[in-house]
Amino acid sequence: MSKFTLLIHCPDTSGIIASVTSFFYKHKGNIIYIDQYVDVENKIFFMRLECEFAKPVKIKELKKEFEETIGKPYQMSWHIYTASSKLNMAIFVSKYDHCLYDILGRYRSGELDVNIPVIISNHKDLEHIARGFDIPFYHIPVIKGQKDKAEKQQKELLEKENIDFIVLARYMQIISPKMIKAFPNRIINIHHSFLPAFAGAKPYHFAYKRGVKIIGATSHYVTEELDAGPIIEQDITRISHSHSVKDLILKGRDLEKIVLARGIKLHIERKTLVFNNKTIVFT
Amino acid sequence: MSKFTLLIHCPDTSGIIASVTSFFYKHKGNIIYIDQYVDVENKIFFMRLECEFAKPVKIKELKKEFEETIGKPYQMSWHIYTASSKLNMAIFVSKYDHCLYDILGRYRSGELDVNIPVIISNHKDLEHIARGFDIPFYHIPVIKGQKDKAEKQQKELLEKENIDFIVLARYMQIISPKMIKAFPNRIINIHHSFLPAFAGAKPYHFAYKRGVKIIGATSHYVTEELDAGPIIEQDITRISHSHSVKDLILKGRDLEKIVLARGIKLHIERKTLVFNNKTIVFT
Amino acid sequence: MSKFTLLIHCPDTSGIIASVTSFFYKHKGNIIYIDQYVDVENKIFFMRLECEFAKPVKIKELKKEFEETIGKPYQMSWHIYTASSKLNMAIFVSKYDHCLYDILGRYRSGELDVNIPVIISNHKDLEHIARGFDIPFYHIPVIKGQKDKAEKQQKELLEKENIDFIVLARYMQIISPKMIKAFPNRIINIHHSFLPAFAGAKPYHFAYKRGVKIIGATSHYVTEELDAGPIIEQDITRISHSHSVKDLILKGRDLEKIVLARGIKLHIERKTLVFNNKTIVFT
Amino acid sequence: MSKFTLLIHCPDTSGIIASVTSFFYKHKGNIIYIDQYVDVENKIFFMRLECEFAKPVKIKELKKEFEETIGKPYQMSWHIYTASSKLNMAIFVSKYDHCLYDILGRYRSGELDVNIPVIISNHKDLEHIARGFDIPFYHIPVIKGQKDKAEKQQKELLEKENIDFIVLARYMQIISPKMIKAFPNRIINIHHSFLPAFAGAKPYHFAYKRGVKIIGATSHYVTEELDAGPIIEQDITRISHSHSVKDLILKGRDLEKIVLARGIKLHIERKTLVFNNKTIVFT
Repeated sequence: MSKFTLLIHCPDTSGIIASVTSFFYKHKGNIIYIDQYVDVENKIFFMRLECEFAKPVKIKELKKEFEETIGKPYQMSWHIYTASSKLNMAIFVSKYDHCLYDILGRYRSGELDVNIPVIISNHKDLEHIARGFDIPFYHIPVIKGQKDKAEKQQKELLEKENIDFIVLARYMQIISPKMIKAFPNRIINIHHSFLPAFAGAKPYHFAYKRGVKIIGATSHYVTEELDAGPIIEQDITRISHSHSVKDLILKGRDLEKIVLARGIKLHIERKTLVFNNKTIVFT
Repeated sequence: MSKFTLLIHCPDTSGIIASVTSFFYKHKGNIIYIDQYVDVENKIFFMRLECEFAKPVKIKELKKEFEETIGKPYQMSWHIYTASSKLNMAIFVSKYDHCLYDILGRYRSGELDVNIPVIISNHKDLEHIARGFDIPFYHIPVIKGQKDKAEKQQKELLEKENIDFIVLARYMQIISPKMIKAFPNRIINIHHSFLPAFAGAKPYHFAYKRGVKIIGATSHYVTEELDAGPIIEQDITRISHSHSVKDLILKGRDLEKIVLARGIKLHIERKTLVFNNKTIVFT
Repeated sequence: MSKFTLLIHCPDTSGIIASVTSFFYKHKGNIIYIDQYVDVENKIFFMRLECEFAKPVKIKELKKEFEETIGKPYQMSWHIYTASSKLNMAIFVSKYDHCLYDILGRYRSGELDVNIPVIISNHKDLEHIARGFDIPFYHIPVIKGQKDKAEKQQKELLEKENIDFIVLARYMQIISPKMIKAFPNRIINIHHSFLPAFAGAKPYHFAYKRGVKIIGATSHYVTEELDAGPIIEQDITRISHSHSVKDLILKGRDLEKIVLARGIKLHIERKTLVFNNKTIVFT
Repeated sequence: MSKFTLLIHCPDTSGIIASVTSFFYKHKGNIIYIDQYVDVENKIFFMRLECEFAKPVKIKELKKEFEETIGKPYQMSWHIYTASSKLNMAIFVSKYDHCLYDILGRYRSGELDVNIPVIISNHKDLEHIARGFDIPFYHIPVIKGQKDKAEKQQKELLEKENIDFIVLARYMQIISPKMIKAFPNRIINIHHSFLPAFAGAKPYHFAYKRGVKIIGATSHYVTEELDAGPIIEQDITRISHSHSVKDLILKGRDLEKIVLARGIKLHIERKTLVFNNKTIVFT
C-alpha cells in the first residue's frame, strides 16, 4: 500500500476537482482526504489530496501523465509527495533552551516524522542538550562585521546535510536576504507575540507596557521584512495586571513551544501552501 | 445564479468523489465547497458539497438523474437543498430568558436565516419578550399527569406552522419519545455542562461540588436517553474555587447562549449529519 | 446588613493592609473580599476590599474617620461605594445592532445592575430596539461641520439624566477631547481587534489581509489617542484562511458582544482602577 | 532579605486578616501578596500570604509567637515556608515519555524550583531519558501478585531520598491505599480527560465513542477513589468528528504535559490548599 499527498494551486475554473479525482480513480487510487479552497479575490484554486493505492504505482509515469493531462491544461503548480520522502530539518538556536527541549522531546517521542541532521548555534550554551539527545551540534559564532563568514559556514553545512527546511527555535540573529532566498517559505520562526502586534524586539516588554490582557505567539515563514512573513499558527494565553515582564516571559514559553511545534508539524505533513504572503493551512 | 447544497452518506467505496463531482461538472455546476469524511470503522462515506449554477437548473430532473446515475448505484442516502427552502424553527422556553434574548437578537440582526413562526412555553413569564420581538407566543401549561394533553396541543401547533425543527432554549420539561420520533435529529437542546460530565439535573451544583476548574455547555440533538444524544457543539470557560454555584450559573449563561446559537446555525446551514449517535459537522 | 466596596491607591509603604483591615475590624465590619496589587516599578499600592456590617453604619462619620486616620497619613486616593449607589449608564449606538441587543438582553435579565436612562444615536435605525425594550431613545444626528452642535445636545442630555458613564456600543463617531475630559475613564468602547494590532478603521479587513489565524476584540476606556486607552478586557477566536472578511465580521460579533459586556460589568462592580494608562482589574 | 509564604485555614470569624497582617507589620515584614477565600457553606477561612523581611528574622521564635498569639486563638491550621526549603520530588513513569521529557526539560530550564532525586519506573523503556538528563533512574518491576514487594522497594527509596511529593507522569499502575496515606495530598496524577467525564481506563476511546467536540486533561491529588481526588488544574482542546482515537491520543499529549506541569508548579510554589476533596488554588 502506497500513499501520495498532492498539493495544487492554479487559476480557478470549473472542472478541476472532477478532473483530478477522476484521474486518480482511473489509476485505482482511493482518495482518503480532499480539501480545497478558492481565493475568490485572486481567482486561485488550491487543493490538498491524499490518495492510497493498493498496488505498487509507477510514480514517474503517473507524474508524467498527470502533468500532461491535468497539470498543463489547468496551468497548475503541483507537487506529489510520497511517504518515503522524509524531510531534513535544521534547528538554529542561541541561548533559550525551552523550544529546543520541546522539539527534541517530540522528535524522540516519534511525534515529528523528520530527520534532524544538525543543530546550529551562535553560542555554546545548549551543546549539552544536543549531546543528551545524540544530535550533532555545530557552534558557528556570529561576530559583528563578519556575519557573512558565519553564514557561509552555515550554508555549507546545510548543503552538506541536504537540509530541506530550517527552524529558528528562538535564534537571536537576523537571517540575511540571501539565506532567505535559498530557503523560500522554508524557514520557520517563532515570534513571541500575536503578530502583527509587537513585531520586532522585546514584545513582552511592550505587551506589559501597553497593558494587554492576552499575550500570544506566532509561527511564520521568514521573509525579508522582519516578522511580516506568512503566519502558520498563532495562539494566546490570558494575563492580568499582576504579571510582571518576567512572568510574561515565563508564561510565554509554553506558548512559544506549542505554536512552534504546531507550525513545524504542519510543514512536515505538507499541510501548508503559501500564496500572496498568506498561508493556506489544510487541517 | 442558483446554489445547491448536497449532503451524502453511503457505504465507502472508491470513485464516489470523482462520480459526484463529474456529475455536477457535466451539468455546468461550479463546486465552491467540498468536504468529505470516511468513518473507517463502519466503512461509511460522508460528503457535503456546495455547487453554483450560472444558468437556471431544472431541479426535479437533475435530482432524478442524480438518483439514477449516482444515488442508486452507490446506495446513497442524499439530500439536495436549495437556498429557497428556508427552515421553520420553533422555540420552546420556560422561565430562563437569556437564550431566548440571544436567539431573537441574532434572528433580528439577520444572523439566523430561518423563520420563527412560534415560541411555545409552559409559563407566561417570557411572553413580553416574544411581544417585544413581534413573534407569536403560545402558553401551553404542562400540568402533572396531563402531559399528553399539552403535547397534543404542541403538536397541532407545530404541524399547523410546518415546523422543521425545534430548539429547546432552556425548556425545563422532558420531551416525550413520541415527540422525539416525530422530529428525529431535529430537536436541539442546550445542556449546561460539558457532557458526558454532569448529565441530568443541576449540573452547576455538581460541578461546584466536584471542584472542577472548567465548566461547559453542550448543544445536542435530543434522543430518548436523557442528555445522551449526538453532540453538535461544546465550549467551556475557566472557573476557580472562589466561584459559588450562583457564580457558575451566571458565568454559564454566556456559554449556553453561544453554544446553542452555534448549534442552531450549523443545523440551519445543513452542516450537520448524524450517524451512530454522533454528528459529522462540516465547517 | 450593609455592604461597602473600598477602592484605594497610594504610594507603597508597609503597614497599609494592617491599618485598613484593623480599621474595619474595629468598626465591626467583616471583610469578605480583599485583593491588592503593588506596581513595583512605580511604587504604587492598589487595593479593593469588600466589607459587610451586621448593624447600620453611619457612613458619613465612618468616611471622615477613615480619611483622618488612614487616607491622609498614607496619602491615599480612595472611594467607598455602597450598594445603594446604582450607576446611570448611557449607551451610544449607530447602525450595528448586535451589541445593543446583547446589552439590553443582559440588562432585562438582571445581569447588569445599572440604570439605562438613555440611548443616543446619530441614526434612527435602532430606535425600534430601544422601543422594544422600553428605553428612551434620542436621535442626535452628527452633521459634518456641525459636530459641536450634536455634542452640545448630547451633553445636555447626559447632564439631565445624571449619567455616570458612557458605553460606545459600536458608535461610529470619534469622541471629542472635551467629551472625554468630562468623562475621564468613564467612556467604554469596544474595538474589533486584539489591540494594539489593527487599531483604527477596518480592523477585520486588515486582519484578513495580514492572514492572522486569530481575531480579537478589546474593550477599553476612551482616551484622546485613538484606540490607545487603558484595556479592560480582551478575547479572541480562531479563524482560518477560508474565512472571508464577511466571515470575520460575523464571527467577530460574538467576540464584540462578550468583551464589551465583560468590560461594562467590571466597571459597574467597581472592579477596575486606572493608573498610567493601564487598568488594574480585580476579579 | 528573606521571604516567607504563609498558608492558613481556620474557622471563619471576623478579625483574622487584621490580626495576621498586624502581626507581620509589627515584626517589620512587608506583605507583598495576600489572597484569601471563605468557604461560606462550611464557614472556613483560607489565606495565602507572602511577606518579605529586610533584616534577618529569628524564624523559630517568630513561629512560636505566631502560634501563641494568632494560631491557637483562631484554631488555625497553618504553615510558614521559607525559600530555603526546596522540595524533593519523585517521578513515577511507565512507558509514555512525553510528560517525562516535558518535566525534565522544564526542570533543566530552571522553570521548576525543585530537586528530583529519583525517577522510578516499572519498565526500563525510559531509562535512557533519565540518563540523558543525569537523573538517577530506578527500575522497580511490578509483578502481578507481588505488588507489595515493589511498593516496599519504592517506599524505602522515597524515604532514603527524603521525598516530599510524588508525580505520576503517566504511571500505569494503581497506587495502593497505604502509599496514598503516606503521601496525603502529595501525589499528583495526570488523567487524560476533563474529569469527571471519562474517569478510569481508556478515556480517549470513550471520548471518541461519545462524539465529544472537546477533550481535556486533569491534574489532581490522588485519593483512594480512582480519579476522584481534588482537582488542581484542567484544560481542554477542540476536536472534530474527523479525529480518530489515535489523533486524540496525539492531541492529548500536549494537554497532559501542560496540565501536569501547571499542577506541579502550583504545588511547588505552595499555592494549593486541600479541603473537603477540593483544592483552593491561589494564583
